[in-house]
Amino acid sequence: MKNKNSSITGRDEDFAKWFTDICMKAELVSYTAVKGCMVIRPYGYAIWENIQKILDGMFKATGHENVCMPMFIPESLLQKEKDHVEGFAPEVAWVTHGGAEKLEERLCVRPTSETLFCDHYAEIIHSYRDLPKLYNQWVSVVRWEKTTRPFLRSREFLWQEGHTIHATAEEAIEETERMLQVYREFCEKYLCMPVIAGKKTESDKFAGAVSTYAIEALMHDGKALQAGTSHYFGDGFAKAFGIQYTSKDNKLEYPHQTSWGMTTRLIGAIIMTHGDDNGLILPPAVAPTQIVVIPVQQHKEGVLEKCETLAQTLREKGYRVKLDDSDNSPGWKFAEYEMKGVPLRIEMGPRDIAENKCVCVSRATGEKIFISLDEIADKIPELFKTYEADIFNAALKNREQRTYTAKTADEINAKLKENGDGFIKAMWCGEEACEDEITAKTGVRSRCIPENQEIISETCVNCGKPAKTMVVWAKAY
Amino acid sequence: MKNKNSSITGRDEDFAKWFTDICMKAELVSYTAVKGCMVIRPYGYAIWENIQKILDGMFKATGHENVCMPMFIPESLLQKEKDHVEGFAPEVAWVTHGGAEKLEERLCVRPTSETLFCDHYAEIIHSYRDLPKLYNQWVSVVRWEKTTRPFLRSREFLWQEGHTIHATAEEAIEETERMLQVYREFCEKYLCMPVIAGKKTESDKFAGAVSTYAIEALMHDGKALQAGTSHYFGDGFAKAFGIQYTSKDNKLEYPHQTSWGMTTRLIGAIIMTHGDDNGLILPPAVAPTQIVVIPVQQHKEGVLEKCETLAQTLREKGYRVKLDDSDNSPGWKFAEYEMKGVPLRIEMGPRDIAENKCVCVSRATGEKIFISLDEIADKIPELFKTYEADIFNAALKNREQRTYTAKTADEINAKLKENGDGFIKAMWCGEEACEDEITAKTGVRSRCIPENQEIISETCVNCGKPAKTMVVWAKAY
Repeated sequence: MKNKNSSITGRDEDFAKWFTDICMKAELVSYTAVKGCMVIRPYGYAIWENIQKILDGMFKATGHENVCMPMFIPESLLQKEKDHVEGFAPEVAWVTHGGAEKLEERLCVRPTSETLFCDHYAEIIHSYRDLPKLYNQWVSVVRWEKTTRPFLRSREFLWQEGHTIHATAEEAIEETERMLQVYREFCEKYLCMPVIAGKKTESDKFAGAVSTYAIEALMHDGKALQAGTSHYFGDGFAKAFGIQYTSKDNKLEYPHQTSWGMTTRLIGAIIMTHGDDNGLILPPAVAPTQIVVIPVQQHKEGVLEKCETLAQTLREKGYRVKLDDSDNSPGWKFAEYEMKGVPLRIEMGPRDIAENKCVCVSRATGEKIFISLDEIADKIPELFKTYEADIFNAALKNREQRTYTAKTADEINAKLKENGDGFIKAMWCGEEACEDEITAKTGVRSRCIPENQEIISETCVNCGKPAKTMVVWAKAY
Repeated sequence: MKNKNSSITGRDEDFAKWFTDICMKAELVSYTAVKGCMVIRPYGYAIWENIQKILDGMFKATGHENVCMPMFIPESLLQKEKDHVEGFAPEVAWVTHGGAEKLEERLCVRPTSETLFCDHYAEIIHSYRDLPKLYNQWVSVVRWEKTTRPFLRSREFLWQEGHTIHATAEEAIEETERMLQVYREFCEKYLCMPVIAGKKTESDKFAGAVSTYAIEALMHDGKALQAGTSHYFGDGFAKAFGIQYTSKDNKLEYPHQTSWGMTTRLIGAIIMTHGDDNGLILPPAVAPTQIVVIPVQQHKEGVLEKCETLAQTLREKGYRVKLDDSDNSPGWKFAEYEMKGVPLRIEMGPRDIAENKCVCVSRATGEKIFISLDEIADKIPELFKTYEADIFNAALKNREQRTYTAKTADEINAKLKENGDGFIKAMWCGEEACEDEITAKTGVRSRCIPENQEIISETCVNCGKPAKTMVVWAKAY
């Protein structure tokens, strides 16, 4: 049987093609008859299920409850908040007919659900006792993009959208920041992906938000990817939708809102952060198969039984384990599970069994170690910890090597030319015009104003006037 | 604070209004700006999450994998299977515009996804080695219904749709029947809801199916509710979509398909099977809160601490427990958690604590028992087992009391008039005309041809010709 990975494009040869090759050959997605929409195949969807499970647990641990809003928004509802409709109306899909009948009012397929949540809040919130509401939903949304790519930009994508409403601005801002930190922790701890947390500039805010926070990751090719966003809305939506509550001292007040989201883009981020020329490299927390057991000389007496026993022992410890006893050669299997990014491969043949050991190979480093069969099950946590540190550190090293400081636009261009794409740390005066000019001059855009500020220079990278903040700039997915 | 259940309509006074009252007052759903679409609120959604978790485990245990198809189907794709498009086209929502642009081909929002799965199969299935594919997805679908009711008939509803494809007809039929049994087991074991499993008559088959199987439950008011369906498609879709595989002996063959689904209707079924005049009665397996602990005289020293310790002990055993230490009176709380259908209420006050015991009240029977605090945690499995038997048996008793046999249409009418709505067991010759005439004469429709056949008479209930099978008839939701 032909090795599926025999024809992956090299990562440094054509990064975009390498990405698509992995999506297809690792069987994560498939194209469909609907332009810009994808089938998420079992292996891809299992990654999403693992992401969901962990994130959902983190949301519930922070007091959130899941709900489900309709997928349709009447046009008049979408139009209630001016900035919001301006941001989204140009890219929504419109339903105009139900069966053979034309609808009296057309409905859009939700591109995001602030308006639906607001309509619901207006119905259920009356008193300070009804606050806060800490809601989340796991659904898909539709945005009619012109250019699409699997996971990174598709017309329909899966996500979670958190929506919360609070008595005070302070509480809502605290929530916005809390969820940003949840996102950061999720990316760093479970996806082994370092991120920069910060605030978006005014021009890059979510439509209708007072402020937008984001976490930004740097992909292997030096382009940035926004991995999660968290928005503070103030009371703008409450005013537009007439949501009011009676406070403890019996006054009518407007509540304050937030929303925050993460999407199937994360799978794209995992691929482009960790993958290599042999295929995917998956973090154990979200890997559909964490350990693959491959028998060597499996026709020899006792080999399969011993492999089965080991696989079963590991399963009982709670690991996701696959034993591949198919007729394919061990070499074919090695390549197959490298392509699929399985973190740990355990090989075992007659000689290993005679010596009561097995061979463990890390997908991250390719390192082979021999471990006693008596110890292997208890060693897995340590092996995974090392593996997680290996892939986190490799990603961090890539980011550090690709993070440059610059004091002028010319310096940005020189650094990018010399070192390739990456994060640029540079100071900014706070004027939108300067932000746009930097993009025009260099091609990088502001990604965020990081929480952890540094002083690169005293003056704005564009206009030379006094700088207010350090901004991280990059080309982005 | 006003008791929320003070204004529930009596169940026997107006069953439909009683149902809606429960949906609203137990905070399961809320109406929205989109006609026929509902918000599933946290308490309702938590029931669905529990249903999902159990069913998903059962699907995975029978070898199924989750995937995710797009929500849109191009019109030309929907039209590929003639019966299928005829069945669904009249009730789909059509997307005609993306942003400001008119689409070249309109897309419908999936009413079900056979066509999308077929399109995908055609791409990925080539050899007998690619079979079977055992897929499922958890999504929402849209059917543009005229008359809608929460959970029972809404324009958008949540469901799972299993889609499988097999080398042979035998395997596909076996799968269709296997999943019907999974559904039956789920309803009986976890929802405590007795069901009749059987085959649909030709006139009641799914659009495009060779045969449709269903499980039918009887609601408290004597109307039937189809709780799950499982379809065998033969190779009709494969032929329409050009799906072929090369068999072991190198011939081109058409594979055989199935699909099967369960929906948020199940929540409606739970309400109407178990609920009473005080509100919901939930099966423990899907109850968002399984046990509520209510302190009595909670201002007295040690009461709250003791209640908290008990709640924590029960949580550590894996139960979903709520301690209500709010300022509301115990009486208010009793009514509130009765409305919400919490299976077990534990009350504990100073006197109980002094005697090292607590009071346990079953939501099913209202029976109060005293249990030692040393034993309570270990007694829960037994209490739940009794509770599950109580509500299952109550539902079964209702069904038995409302199941009648009849040999003629007149007898059907007489039995319904005398005893109210219910299941009618009556013989049928197999002719569609007789089926329709029975409906015209009596108002009941065929629900299914049960697996467990009985002989009620030798002749068809309508035409008097020799009977082929026993059919169960009823009015239905």
